[in-house]
Amino acid sequence: MKKPWGGRFSEEIDEFLEAFSESISFDKELAFAEIKASRIYAQALRKAGLLSEEELDQILQGLSEIEEEIKQGAFPFRIELEDIHMHVEKALAEKIGDIAYKLHTGRSRNEQVVADERIYIAERLEELKALLVDFILVILDKAEEYFEVVMPGFTHLQHAQPVLFSHWVTTFAEMMRLHLQRCLDFEKRLKQCPLGSSAFAGCGFPLDREFMAKALSFYEPTRHSVYAVSSRDFISELLFILSLIMVDLSRFSEEIILWTSEEFCFASLPDRLTTGSSIMPQKKNPDPAELIRGKSATVIGNLFQMLTLQKGLPLSYNRDLQEDKPPLFQALNYTLNSLRMATLLVKGLKLNAEKISEHLKHGYLLATELADYLVLKGVPFRKAHHVVGEIVRYAEGRKKELSELSLDEYKKFHQAFEEDVYEWLTVEHALSRRNILGGTGKRVVKEYIDCLRSELKTMVGRD
Amino acid sequence: MKKPWGGRFSEEIDEFLEAFSESISFDKELAFAEIKASRIYAQALRKAGLLSEEELDQILQGLSEIEEEIKQGAFPFRIELEDIHMHVEKALAEKIGDIAYKLHTGRSRNEQVVADERIYIAERLEELKALLVDFILVILDKAEEYFEVVMPGFTHLQHAQPVLFSHWVTTFAEMMRLHLQRCLDFEKRLKQCPLGSSAFAGCGFPLDREFMAKALSFYEPTRHSVYAVSSRDFISELLFILSLIMVDLSRFSEEIILWTSEEFCFASLPDRLTTGSSIMPQKKNPDPAELIRGKSATVIGNLFQMLTLQKGLPLSYNRDLQEDKPPLFQALNYTLNSLRMATLLVKGLKLNAEKISEHLKHGYLLATELADYLVLKGVPFRKAHHVVGEIVRYAEGRKKELSELSLDEYKKFHQAFEEDVYEWLTVEHALSRRNILGGTGKRVVKEYIDCLRSELKTMVGRD
Amino acid sequence: MKKPWGGRFSEEIDEFLEAFSESISFDKELAFAEIKASRIYAQALRKAGLLSEEELDQILQGLSEIEEEIKQGAFPFRIELEDIHMHVEKALAEKIGDIAYKLHTGRSRNEQVVADERIYIAERLEELKALLVDFILVILDKAEEYFEVVMPGFTHLQHAQPVLFSHWVTTFAEMMRLHLQRCLDFEKRLKQCPLGSSAFAGCGFPLDREFMAKALSFYEPTRHSVYAVSSRDFISELLFILSLIMVDLSRFSEEIILWTSEEFCFASLPDRLTTGSSIMPQKKNPDPAELIRGKSATVIGNLFQMLTLQKGLPLSYNRDLQEDKPPLFQALNYTLNSLRMATLLVKGLKLNAEKISEHLKHGYLLATELADYLVLKGVPFRKAHHVVGEIVRYAEGRKKELSELSLDEYKKFHQAFEEDVYEWLTVEHALSRRNILGGTGKRVVKEYIDCLRSELKTMVGRD
Amino acid sequence: MKKPWGGRFSEEIDEFLEAFSESISFDKELAFAEIKASRIYAQALRKAGLLSEEELDQILQGLSEIEEEIKQGAFPFRIELEDIHMHVEKALAEKIGDIAYKLHTGRSRNEQVVADERIYIAERLEELKALLVDFILVILDKAEEYFEVVMPGFTHLQHAQPVLFSHWVTTFAEMMRLHLQRCLDFEKRLKQCPLGSSAFAGCGFPLDREFMAKALSFYEPTRHSVYAVSSRDFISELLFILSLIMVDLSRFSEEIILWTSEEFCFASLPDRLTTGSSIMPQKKNPDPAELIRGKSATVIGNLFQMLTLQKGLPLSYNRDLQEDKPPLFQALNYTLNSLRMATLLVKGLKLNAEKISEHLKHGYLLATELADYLVLKGVPFRKAHHVVGEIVRYAEGRKKELSELSLDEYKKFHQAFEEDVYEWLTVEHALSRRNILGGTGKRVVKEYIDCLRSELKTMVGRD
Repeated sequence: MKKPWGGRFSEEIDEFLEAFSESISFDKELAFAEIKASRIYAQALRKAGLLSEEELDQILQGLSEIEEEIKQGAFPFRIELEDIHMHVEKALAEKIGDIAYKLHTGRSRNEQVVADERIYIAERLEELKALLVDFILVILDKAEEYFEVVMPGFTHLQHAQPVLFSHWVTTFAEMMRLHLQRCLDFEKRLKQCPLGSSAFAGCGFPLDREFMAKALSFYEPTRHSVYAVSSRDFISELLFILSLIMVDLSRFSEEIILWTSEEFCFASLPDRLTTGSSIMPQKKNPDPAELIRGKSATVIGNLFQMLTLQKGLPLSYNRDLQEDKPPLFQALNYTLNSLRMATLLVKGLKLNAEKISEHLKHGYLLATELADYLVLKGVPFRKAHHVVGEIVRYAEGRKKELSELSLDEYKKFHQAFEEDVYEWLTVEHALSRRNILGGTGKRVVKEYIDCLRSELKTMVGRD
Repeated sequence: MKKPWGGRFSEEIDEFLEAFSESISFDKELAFAEIKASRIYAQALRKAGLLSEEELDQILQGLSEIEEEIKQGAFPFRIELEDIHMHVEKALAEKIGDIAYKLHTGRSRNEQVVADERIYIAERLEELKALLVDFILVILDKAEEYFEVVMPGFTHLQHAQPVLFSHWVTTFAEMMRLHLQRCLDFEKRLKQCPLGSSAFAGCGFPLDREFMAKALSFYEPTRHSVYAVSSRDFISELLFILSLIMVDLSRFSEEIILWTSEEFCFASLPDRLTTGSSIMPQKKNPDPAELIRGKSATVIGNLFQMLTLQKGLPLSYNRDLQEDKPPLFQALNYTLNSLRMATLLVKGLKLNAEKISEHLKHGYLLATELADYLVLKGVPFRKAHHVVGEIVRYAEGRKKELSELSLDEYKKFHQAFEEDVYEWLTVEHALSRRNILGGTGKRVVKEYIDCLRSELKTMVGRD
Repeated sequence: MKKPWGGRFSEEIDEFLEAFSESISFDKELAFAEIKASRIYAQALRKAGLLSEEELDQILQGLSEIEEEIKQGAFPFRIELEDIHMHVEKALAEKIGDIAYKLHTGRSRNEQVVADERIYIAERLEELKALLVDFILVILDKAEEYFEVVMPGFTHLQHAQPVLFSHWVTTFAEMMRLHLQRCLDFEKRLKQCPLGSSAFAGCGFPLDREFMAKALSFYEPTRHSVYAVSSRDFISELLFILSLIMVDLSRFSEEIILWTSEEFCFASLPDRLTTGSSIMPQKKNPDPAELIRGKSATVIGNLFQMLTLQKGLPLSYNRDLQEDKPPLFQALNYTLNSLRMATLLVKGLKLNAEKISEHLKHGYLLATELADYLVLKGVPFRKAHHVVGEIVRYAEGRKKELSELSLDEYKKFHQAFEEDVYEWLTVEHALSRRNILGGTGKRVVKEYIDCLRSELKTMVGRD
Repeated sequence: MKKPWGGRFSEEIDEFLEAFSESISFDKELAFAEIKASRIYAQALRKAGLLSEEELDQILQGLSEIEEEIKQGAFPFRIELEDIHMHVEKALAEKIGDIAYKLHTGRSRNEQVVADERIYIAERLEELKALLVDFILVILDKAEEYFEVVMPGFTHLQHAQPVLFSHWVTTFAEMMRLHLQRCLDFEKRLKQCPLGSSAFAGCGFPLDREFMAKALSFYEPTRHSVYAVSSRDFISELLFILSLIMVDLSRFSEEIILWTSEEFCFASLPDRLTTGSSIMPQKKNPDPAELIRGKSATVIGNLFQMLTLQKGLPLSYNRDLQEDKPPLFQALNYTLNSLRMATLLVKGLKLNAEKISEHLKHGYLLATELADYLVLKGVPFRKAHHVVGEIVRYAEGRKKELSELSLDEYKKFHQAFEEDVYEWLTVEHALSRRNILGGTGKRVVKEYIDCLRSELKTMVGRD
């Protein structure tokens, strides 16, 4: 097919190349952003006297019709029209004739594509922020629901110290709080309007770039025209934030998978959030968590694709950059859906408090308390640690728990032990000693939850 | 919707989870492989006495009808049916009733999916090998077409030594020859049939696994049932080979982009293999090469997704592994199409021999010859190198080429120079000295080309 | 060797494991941070009454001696002491006896390592910001030095439109400005003090965490003890910023390599910033730029090591996290040194204005001007574009430049052409039309430079 | 310092660049390979008449002395001498004077570095293969030691079907067997000798390349001189194999970590293979497994550094390629040591057969048997699956195991159930039904082990 840019060409494009180079199969995702950007560009052309009022009206009317058709699914996408920019241009010409061609005055696809991408991402970012808040809020709810439940805390997947479930699970809330903050910082850089940058040298007509930025609710115009069309730093930054979110969700998933295993049995998921096996009739698998964990690899890979894509490219625009879109869309969809899924998982999660408390009895979770006890009796910590290590070895050899050892036995290891040591060998006592800011004491965990709720209200107006 | 595995479940699957966990939107690509595997599995069930002859016939008949429907595009894909395995099972039941359900005897999706993937890849690998050969052959043709053209060879993108174009360009043929060899090695590991591994513990019915492997033209059955369903090493290995191919094609593309730039002007592409700009009417861009270079980032990323996906997973099957398919299909499509595109580029490439020969005059390409000349006069190489370095600095300061210096001038730098030095200062002489195996002498380049042609015939029966 | 944590162990650690698990060979880089953190921790213990004034003095004195020894290179590092934490603890005990062991009261290596890392990174970040500013400033200087030089601007490595060198090169300044902004945003998240988080459950003694944060000049204590020891989000975020910087430096390097090639000849580097060949005496290679480009791959890889490392880990601390340090140190060193190198390259760069202006004559750089000309005569842009495309094809066929065509020839393509068209066919005219914000007009480029200078002053107090 | 290639340079290299571009700090690892290659190159020069017998002797003598000094640690490495090639050249000159400089006749660092790398890797590959075999053999030993132990097999980390421990654990042997095969295939491509390729155009002197390849015990000379110096495909291929090994070792580590957790308690490690905590005296952590899992991320990252490094580079040699060495050395060291560590872990592993058998009782591991039972009674599998699913739900509601249900209860779900169903509800029966090739039946697992032992003997002469 004869191309809009085909004036200087003596033969038509190779058919295989046409298919190889098309982007419409994925950049149609940008359709509404393209129309939004075109509307604003048309207004700027009008302000610069390059369109008459009537021409502007026709263009705006045509764009609205196209928008409606796309919404209805009635808009035809064709590989020969290459990309979303050519589709809208062509459709407009079919509706309003040659005036449509004025819309491209001083405008280049190089700037259009980044404008579209920035507009599109700004909209998806609102969704992302809302989903982060949703996820945080269900975590806080769940923490409150099971506020009193104490579980073994783990390091190295080994029993370490007792911890409130509400403290353990809000780790993920804290991670997401910081991701939310990253989103807000990112917006400053995202919401810069490239329109008026043209191919890379700046538009040859005196368009009002401040006006266009404002009309998009963006902070400012991009400040440098070559930067504007050359760099995809804003996509990389988004993909990085998405990767961080997915890495943390993969850790959340790991917890869910462990908790719902036969061996841990800390928690269960409702049937509607699990799936079965095609061969083993008894299976009830935590597939959603596994899928999230799996998708984290994909999203990290998307970030890698973006960074590698840009490596070593000369300025300014190169066609390689077309490949920025598949990872962008994939990473966004995967992450947003994974957040939705994770939110459902938290909501559906039921703790098995009885089983958890059985597990609390094993693994010498209170050994650190013993050491701290000795410290308060004046023993330097490292010495105290060593003494308690020997006690654990002794108890383990006799298959006893720490609370089952007699005071005489304790005294054999260190004379500082006295009757009050047994007060230290309860989970409650261990928790009560940790009402330090950020710790697992009940008071401070409660404060953490309340404080985060009120901060969300301030940050994004939600609670 | 009620699931085939739903017997033990008290509520239906969450609707969002249904959409989140479906794979049919991409694994339908495996439809023909699924049918092929099912046919063979049915025959094995028959051999084991688990199906009657009549039941087998009905199943085979049903599968053929489904295959035909898929070919015609008449087969409905629905998210509620999760994946390609459930689609075929369900469709078969709709055609032949309860007998269809016998096909799943002793069979698990865990083994089905790897069987399908191995069958599918084996088929695409044939395509890949053919495309590698095509690409090599057009390179050899192009090398012969411009056999006599001498160009500056580059290191560090600086002029280094003269080289035959036919030698330079066949670098890519040599790279691809080794990739072809990698494909052949990989086939040994790929063509192992997992059928009969069941969920992971091996089938509880005495199926003839050797028969199934043979029926697929595979080398052997997989040897270990847990390995068979747990590992995706064969996908990683394919993706690695594809990554290597793409990395080398990205380098090929870089050459094309440089050669067709205004500054190099070594070559041009026909209009049909370039594209224009939406704003700059004069542009004729080497987009296909840029797109290949860009897609190399995507394919490397796909490999990364696969490896990261598997990291840290416990045995045996985990649902994370569903995410193996998007990178597999993307990498295959991108690489196969990039090879097709690169083949077209070589075919269409026109050298600009005149411009190239102008460039040959600059950059002191024959300085190494001068040093070698001195070596043959008995000067140790490192000394000779130093002397010639000084001569180049001298010549450059006077804006002279090496052949323009007088013998007196040469002698000022070293007494060993004599009249015969000028014989050494021609490109022809430099080439003639490099008829060493693998070098850029005309005889050996010719031999390389002939030898590779005949090797391809042996390796894959092509020439 | 008997370990400090060895009380409960009945045999000594396997010798190979000792070597396999040591980190001192790389985490000694954290030595000063470890001492800084320990000082503050000791003060907090004192405030909580867990140390006497005298004990505190001894500890502080001991730490200062150790610090001095490390500075002098007199401090012995030994694999058996595992990591930097154990080294300092042990050395302190050798100096001041058992009191040293009190320093570990309520303290865990889990919190120590993140405290050290955050302190260390905060210091290196100051260096990074200073180097970004240095690089921006030499770019601005160079832009001013060659302010008037016009060069062909490229898209797809093809001649596109004329552009001021000062505009083209400041693209990299703009990229770095945004990276600087990213650093400032990142600091908010980095400068959170984890001390007091202990193993993960919070310290069992009432330490003043606000005091410790303040003493480190950090913004606040981390808010959640499990988050504090589990997450490495702050390292990932740093590595992402470093990756973005390196990707952009790889593009800068690509420009340098192209510009200094024989074919472009736009610029040259001084001898001291190039290297030669071991065999070809004439070579003068832009190795520094190639090395930066190469190192960008390493730094991207470091980011992926970090992200993949954390994927799928359960809470809280797992020993995998020890592997966060090699990529952290490598990425920091590579990026900081690459910035230093790039700064030297810009400083040393000499433009070859004469050669550049020759290149300006080719490639129909002013074709867009012709189209814009027609637009102002009332021709819709897309039509104008098509007409000019045909003109270019016509001119090319006759080996003429656009300015060499007669008005009659122009009129054959479109009647709107008049005598004034020739005014449009100068580079000066094209530039003068682009005094749009961010464009390549001289006035706006000057403004950009001035504005960035004054912004740097505000952002980081530099100019 | 004045460089050996410095003849044409008018000023000395910048000091910072000297440090930035040095590689001796890591490529000294190639020292012995460099000497080996130099010896053979000298012999080839002699054969071509470019050295006298006496000169050859002196060179060989000098090289041997240098080799000895390096072994003794007496050889000085200095940044000003850039790389290992210049170090050996310089040291040789200091020993034997100007004759040393003849060794560089027709030789380029471009070919030297790949020759060194290929020689070096060939040697490390022998180590790697031996370690793979070691690991396989200890797995087979351990499988035999606990041959009778039955454990729950997992999918989705949920109980699935009973499996022999010896079958489960040999999964890793099978994975490693295939990696061993990959090593053998790789050797064909690795052992090609690039000597004689010179800078990229082939050596200008008639060296006997077949002789050099043979002298190195390589298969053949590289066939194309530009390929020889441009491509690092052989390093990428090694790093890919190492990545695959590490991914599988990360899964092995995950198993170890799970098995030794308090909740699983399937196995324990001896004290000498675990480490403790600095704060919690009771801890005994499976650090070696965590470190292996962590190091897998590093090695995957190394592969991506290599691939990204090469992306988009023009032919032939570019200085970027210097960055191939850090990932090469890191990946080799990490993988070889991880294999050693994993071998120790298997050796030290003690199963807790009693605990494992308790876990066998839960999770309805025999549900698939029930379904198969119905199949043999004529029920189509999918129907049978559904019926058993309902039985499981029923049993779970009553907190009963399958074997505790009465025949009447069974009959309520399906009339086909009869008294013989209870025979099917034993682990022994389930295993006995899986003596299918590759399955978990005792006979076939025994066969697998024996067969692999004898295959190793054939493949690499080990048992």
